[in-house]
Amino acid sequence: MIKEIRRGNARAIAKAISLVENDSAAAQRLMRQVFAWRKDAVVLGITGAPGTGKSTLVDQLIGRLRAAGRKIGIVAVDPSSPFSGGAILGDRIRMMRHSVDADVFIRSMATRGHLGGLAKATGEAIAILEAAGKDYILVETVGVGQDEVEVVKLADVVLVVLTPDAGDEIQAFKAGIMEIADIFVINKADHPGADKMERQLRAMLDLGLPDKDKPSVIKTVATKGQGTDGMLSEVDRLMEKRDRRLQEIRRKRLLAWMLRDVIREKIDQLISRDIPDSVFEEYVDQIYHRRTDPYTVADRLISRLKEKG
Amino acid sequence: MIKEIRRGNARAIAKAISLVENDSAAAQRLMRQVFAWRKDAVVLGITGAPGTGKSTLVDQLIGRLRAAGRKIGIVAVDPSSPFSGGAILGDRIRMMRHSVDADVFIRSMATRGHLGGLAKATGEAIAILEAAGKDYILVETVGVGQDEVEVVKLADVVLVVLTPDAGDEIQAFKAGIMEIADIFVINKADHPGADKMERQLRAMLDLGLPDKDKPSVIKTVATKGQGTDGMLSEVDRLMEKRDRRLQEIRRKRLLAWMLRDVIREKIDQLISRDIPDSVFEEYVDQIYHRRTDPYTVADRLISRLKEKG
Repeated sequence: MIKEIRRGNARAIAKAISLVENDSAAAQRLMRQVFAWRKDAVVLGITGAPGTGKSTLVDQLIGRLRAAGRKIGIVAVDPSSPFSGGAILGDRIRMMRHSVDADVFIRSMATRGHLGGLAKATGEAIAILEAAGKDYILVETVGVGQDEVEVVKLADVVLVVLTPDAGDEIQAFKAGIMEIADIFVINKADHPGADKMERQLRAMLDLGLPDKDKPSVIKTVATKGQGTDGMLSEVDRLMEKRDRRLQEIRRKRLLAWMLRDVIREKIDQLISRDIPDSVFEEYVDQIYHRRTDPYTVADRLISRLKEKG
Repeated sequence: MIKEIRRGNARAIAKAISLVENDSAAAQRLMRQVFAWRKDAVVLGITGAPGTGKSTLVDQLIGRLRAAGRKIGIVAVDPSSPFSGGAILGDRIRMMRHSVDADVFIRSMATRGHLGGLAKATGEAIAILEAAGKDYILVETVGVGQDEVEVVKLADVVLVVLTPDAGDEIQAFKAGIMEIADIFVINKADHPGADKMERQLRAMLDLGLPDKDKPSVIKTVATKGQGTDGMLSEVDRLMEKRDRRLQEIRRKRLLAWMLRDVIREKIDQLISRDIPDSVFEEYVDQIYHRRTDPYTVADRLISRLKEKG
């Protein structure tokens, strides 16, 4: 299977990601090989509220990168909100013109069920795509939830997509999105208020950050392909300019975060294996009837786990 | 401190929740007492997309419950999205007319940093408010993120707030929100489309669920206080009618989920304590340089943890 992945076989890649999502023992054996064979790709993080035109922008990005002969992997991290209907990005992208291109692999990853395991899931998907020889990997999120923001900010270059339409952009900056972005993209720049928004944004960046850390601001009309060339050259420029060291730091942070997730999941598996459901339920029952509390029980179960070796 | 909490002292409650959020050793000693002293309150889960008027509805609910002499705790679970600006609910509620009422305790809990620890944080806040003698505890979320949905669906009665304005309500049902709700509240029912929406909703419920499990549908205009009496009697009716067993099942599920979070956090603490940062970083470095992989490292670190006892 690792052979097929290294050849870039889309079915093998898809199967590997599914294996990983289902967390089978086979997945771990495979992932050990994947980690041995992966080669660093450029990882772009793209985030923005729903409705900012992120998918169209990504579609344009894919077009440009393909024209330059790059192989591309897309990971759309999906918050599976009951209010968004889930799978927003992935489904839309999948229907796009690139879905038949063998060198474009698109995968939507649901965060459903991955309680806090987003780093692991995303890190593994990136590693698989790197082993498959992708040159660029686009990690796309809708920026809800802290984990999602964490994942995206660990990419080599982070694009934050805004529009002149949204009334609450200013609020967004308050919440610390300023530090996430390497490039701000004002999409739908043909809508009223785009220039005003750019001014506000630049003014805010002038206040908040020293020159060398200042993210660039680019205006696009993704539906017409306007400004996307400029956006891509800015990505290239950043990748060249960017301190190799900074990149290494971000990558290691992602790996560290992922490692913690892997440890957590392994311990969860140990707990399920070594502590019978009946014992666990008996403890829950005792907590419910106020005969003990979760902290005392946790201590007891952890000691028990250690004894079992 | 437990004494002051039991008296309902708001500062003591606030301090206890902060202790718990910061995860100090003192918090665990306190929480053991909290769990011994808590008495079951009615826990209402209230969820709905931003802009549905949830806060106004909660404000109305508080008014009615206070008029009946009930003591109330509100936990607003906050996704800390960089796009929402964070602390949406909590801040808004805090400014309301009930903030000076000693028998209304309002707390916004950020999910920031609580990677997957939402069950623990919410469970602890509920337990503290129960120890403080609250009769009703309202857990409010904006329904983004799977964890948030999980938390809310473990309440005794779950209200899902919709509006006729939102175009994508139908999608919401697809994603399984139907199973979460005990009561659907169509707020802003004076807006056009409210009746149509009610019909669609009822039609969908008729198709999907047997009569006895069917959630009720209630129309409100929260800003004018219309329909909120009916909503509250429906909550009371459900609480009386509701199988005590079902309630016990939901409560135990929350406790089980919380217990898992407590175990996870304790193990995280063990890892930080027993595995020096330098060792952890050295491993990350080796993964980065492809000399090993996260799975092998995780196995090694877990064995090391066990040996340390």
